[in-house]
Amino acid sequence: MFITFEGPDGSGKSTIIKKLYEELVKEGYDILLTREPGGTPISEKIRDIILDNNNTNLDYRTEALLYAASRRQHLVEKIWPALKRGEIVLCDRYLDSSLAYQGGARKLGIKNILDINLFATEKTYPDLTIFFDVSPEVGLSRLSHDKKRIADRLDNETSNFHDSVYKTFLEVCDMYPERIIKIDASKSIDEVYNEAYTIIKKKLDELH
Amino acid sequence: MFITFEGPDGSGKSTIIKKLYEELVKEGYDILLTREPGGTPISEKIRDIILDNNNTNLDYRTEALLYAASRRQHLVEKIWPALKRGEIVLCDRYLDSSLAYQGGARKLGIKNILDINLFATEKTYPDLTIFFDVSPEVGLSRLSHDKKRIADRLDNETSNFHDSVYKTFLEVCDMYPERIIKIDASKSIDEVYNEAYTIIKKKLDELH
Repeated sequence: MFITFEGPDGSGKSTIIKKLYEELVKEGYDILLTREPGGTPISEKIRDIILDNNNTNLDYRTEALLYAASRRQHLVEKIWPALKRGEIVLCDRYLDSSLAYQGGARKLGIKNILDINLFATEKTYPDLTIFFDVSPEVGLSRLSHDKKRIADRLDNETSNFHDSVYKTFLEVCDMYPERIIKIDASKSIDEVYNEAYTIIKKKLDELH
Repeated sequence: MFITFEGPDGSGKSTIIKKLYEELVKEGYDILLTREPGGTPISEKIRDIILDNNNTNLDYRTEALLYAASRRQHLVEKIWPALKRGEIVLCDRYLDSSLAYQGGARKLGIKNILDINLFATEKTYPDLTIFFDVSPEVGLSRLSHDKKRIADRLDNETSNFHDSVYKTFLEVCDMYPERIIKIDASKSIDEVYNEAYTIIKKKLDELH
């Protein structure tokens, strides 16, 4: 089973995924916990280009194609083999992040980004996606203990960018109501964890 | 004006493009002679991944996405600015090579490869494409003076690959009869050069 986790920055996603992983392993499940580029040498090299060229002249469409290329290689080398071995794959960000960041915030269009990613993934959608729903204000303020400093640092454009990411995530949730389950991630970590755990266990039970 | 040159290996393409460039510069045209990755640092790094991982586990779809990413960056950084300055761009291989190599020979489908490249190029088609039409047998034999040795070295798969590249190039020519002009490249270099020169001059005259 292929489970992905999505959400804006500061949604508590990574902390909770780690807890979920530890709990499920303890219960005896075979789990692959991963995130792009996932340690595959080719995907890492691709990611290096994206990151090395941050703030230079890396074009947004080039960036979107590189993310799709990195995703493809990660899928081929890590995710598909794990699924084939019958493992549960927990992946921190996947397709929907590209739809929100490249499609929405970079204004390349959800449909365009979906198309290149359907080519990249051969239409490999997750069986389940948990969306950590938290507004940009709450999410970003969580990224630092000094909430005021962070808020001050956000210029208009950055704020628009994060608003657009969030808005597009909500659109994507509406596009895939069967696959994506929203969790109110403004709650405490424990509450959010419990909700995510219940959803995943229910899905696992459905399959057995 | 954006002119591209396409054809299988050994079609004499590169030699002839260089002669065309020298002649047109002598006649006073402003020309950009280029080929992907075109010396742009990002495109070069992308190309390094494609070439470094030759014969390893670089997936064909990853490869196709990387070619499209490299093409995009080359277009943004070199080709579009040159066209904007009013120069004539002569580009050795472009979109159609991906259709033939990735779409045809790698069996990813012409339509799939066209779609990701239309995203990459924002539908920037060349104004004119010259296809150097030469069969794989003639093309490959030209790559070495020792024709026999080359022929012996070709195992079945390699031969199928080159046949498929050639066959797909012909299909692509049929898709774009207005844009792509075929030249019989089995003729002598001088004859092929003269034909290409005449076609380009006619196109340039149409525009003035």
